[in-house]
Amino acid sequence: MKPKAVLIVCDGLADRPVKELEGRTPLEAVDKSSMDELAKLGVNGIMDVISPGIPPGSDTAHLALFGYDPFQVYRGRGALEALGGGFPVKPGDVAFRVNFATVDEDMTVLDRRAGRIRTELAAQLAPQLQNLSLPEYPDVKVSFLHTTEHRGALILRGEGLSRNVTDSDPGRTSSKVLEVKATDQSPEALKTAGILNRLTKKIHQILREHPLNRELAEKGAKPANCVLFRGAGILPPITPMTRLFNVKAACIAVTALVRGVSAAAGMELLNVEGATGTLETDVIAKAKKLVENFQNFDFFFLHVKGADNASHDGNLEGKMAMVKKLDSMVKFLLNNLNLEETVIALTSDHTTPLSMRNHSGDPVPLTIAGWGVLADDVNQFSEKACAKGGLGRIRGKDLMPILMNLVGRLKKFGV
Amino acid sequence: MKPKAVLIVCDGLADRPVKELEGRTPLEAVDKSSMDELAKLGVNGIMDVISPGIPPGSDTAHLALFGYDPFQVYRGRGALEALGGGFPVKPGDVAFRVNFATVDEDMTVLDRRAGRIRTELAAQLAPQLQNLSLPEYPDVKVSFLHTTEHRGALILRGEGLSRNVTDSDPGRTSSKVLEVKATDQSPEALKTAGILNRLTKKIHQILREHPLNRELAEKGAKPANCVLFRGAGILPPITPMTRLFNVKAACIAVTALVRGVSAAAGMELLNVEGATGTLETDVIAKAKKLVENFQNFDFFFLHVKGADNASHDGNLEGKMAMVKKLDSMVKFLLNNLNLEETVIALTSDHTTPLSMRNHSGDPVPLTIAGWGVLADDVNQFSEKACAKGGLGRIRGKDLMPILMNLVGRLKKFGV
Repeated sequence: MKPKAVLIVCDGLADRPVKELEGRTPLEAVDKSSMDELAKLGVNGIMDVISPGIPPGSDTAHLALFGYDPFQVYRGRGALEALGGGFPVKPGDVAFRVNFATVDEDMTVLDRRAGRIRTELAAQLAPQLQNLSLPEYPDVKVSFLHTTEHRGALILRGEGLSRNVTDSDPGRTSSKVLEVKATDQSPEALKTAGILNRLTKKIHQILREHPLNRELAEKGAKPANCVLFRGAGILPPITPMTRLFNVKAACIAVTALVRGVSAAAGMELLNVEGATGTLETDVIAKAKKLVENFQNFDFFFLHVKGADNASHDGNLEGKMAMVKKLDSMVKFLLNNLNLEETVIALTSDHTTPLSMRNHSGDPVPLTIAGWGVLADDVNQFSEKACAKGGLGRIRGKDLMPILMNLVGRLKKFGV
Repeated sequence: MKPKAVLIVCDGLADRPVKELEGRTPLEAVDKSSMDELAKLGVNGIMDVISPGIPPGSDTAHLALFGYDPFQVYRGRGALEALGGGFPVKPGDVAFRVNFATVDEDMTVLDRRAGRIRTELAAQLAPQLQNLSLPEYPDVKVSFLHTTEHRGALILRGEGLSRNVTDSDPGRTSSKVLEVKATDQSPEALKTAGILNRLTKKIHQILREHPLNRELAEKGAKPANCVLFRGAGILPPITPMTRLFNVKAACIAVTALVRGVSAAAGMELLNVEGATGTLETDVIAKAKKLVENFQNFDFFFLHVKGADNASHDGNLEGKMAMVKKLDSMVKFLLNNLNLEETVIALTSDHTTPLSMRNHSGDPVPLTIAGWGVLADDVNQFSEKACAKGGLGRIRGKDLMPILMNLVGRLKKFGV
């Protein structure tokens, strides 16, 4: 049997020097013996997930990590978000990330997340948005998908649509909901913008009359009386990595956008009880799911979001706790997988410095250990230590060929 | 006088950890003081000959090592093989690697190499295949070239031919000789497939009647009663590196395919008595040929095949003996060349792990020593040691510009 490959991506884990840690990064400051053990066993390096200096998004980063050139294949966020939320997006569909939001009578945005409306409340609103056919556009099917809290997706299906349209989401409060505009003068873009502007009005009419919103308003809570569209996207024109490398692949992730990229790449999406995409997520449950399914797949993508959330919030303590938690997950995997029949890669999809509270384009550390690997003498998994390793500095899109080569899944180019 | 450059390529030399060597590679386990001396004198690095993770073929690897992008210029194996065998392939010619093989009456392949027929026997068959004109294709000239043992090439010359055809070689025994098919529906591909299928029959008719084959059959030996075609190719669309870098270049290699790439790149092919392309090859004779011709060329490409053969056969002892042999060759060169007027690069065209018995996409070690080189502190020529060197991690196609820059052969880009 061929060895299997496991790719562990700790979202936003890499960092810059932190003042409170006397210039160390969280990875340098936290005692994390299992991650360091993996680095000791393996070959290490740093990786420009997109290209040097370019801050990756979650979508472009994962496209690169799965072996694609995001500059060539990225077609916006919307379709990936919808796919990750479970909607069977088809080629030609144009999809949008959607927020439930609170607006006043003037359509000025008061809260872009409708007070972070609870999932079960938003779920009561969603059924009203299932039949959004527009008489002006009889050939276009409109689908609304609610995922978690204020989040959802909108999918347009029909002839002559385009993703070349702007967002209705102004990106901040005290601004009016924006009119969607075509970014080129094609009939397709003009038509798509027209549909969205009609939908903004129609959905507002439906939601403001909804009994739940009246109830919320009476209680002094923020009603979810509007939706905001952003991130128009179509499916990326990619051949599934499962076909490119002839592997059965599993994705263990919660974040809809990341699940969407995984689905587009041909992976099967596994669900894990207790995995939440937050700092409270049950990382051992995720690792257990992988171990339980070890015989059923050739490649596993295991994604943990928490560290990124902590960095976005400037939450140093939370990030350090997350490093500890991730270390326990690596420990579980080291105890339950056999490195003589497995290659494990440990990395991050991008750096999210606590000091920036946003993604940066700094390279991320990378460890590859297990079957066929020529270990170097690095003995710590950190931004600095990995930079001295035997992998040197690679690009994100080269990681998958490197892993697939190690497990013997690549064909010779030439003879 | 400008310094000269020498590129030593040890085919398939790099490896992965070997169990029997307690996790060391053959390069780490064998005492090889001259290679290590070169590493000590030079700057070191690792090289992705094609791109990270991609297992190179011999043809694509050498295209890259001579400065070309194989993804852009590779056009199949056949024409390179024929060129390396000494046939003056022209643009437009479509050529094939050919095997003498043994088939039964049903055209089922019994031996893909006709019992590895001896060169002098196969040479008796070849003259019968010199006039293979087909009345159905009066405008196409067919040439047959025998090289060594069961090996040869077939070259089609004429208007309207294509390399977009499949192999007749089924790649294994107990299968029938395959019908050649066009891989696109162009008239050129259909015509080329038609020619090859006619030739399969015609050559079979000629060979089965041949007195030598009757003789072999009577002795119970396998007759060479058929030929198998594979690897359709045309010349790569490249400018000779001799013109690109304005150098006179010599190739010292035996393997036909490697000689073919060298010829396509504009090198003069030198012949060496005792060089066999096997583990028994006389490496000192090859090094002597280089030293004798030192004044006649600006660039030398010195290729030694043996280590790759050993890895393909899983022959650890043979590979280790080959490392010793290569070390003696490097010693001879260090003793007979002046590093103050020479740059020597030592590397491999790809990794061939003993554990895989095939090419892999692992990076190869690279040492560059001599004129103009800024030495680093690496003191061993091995996969791991070179990874710590001053060259970092480079691509195969960048090696030739690096060497030509060192010897002052490159013009400024811009002013």
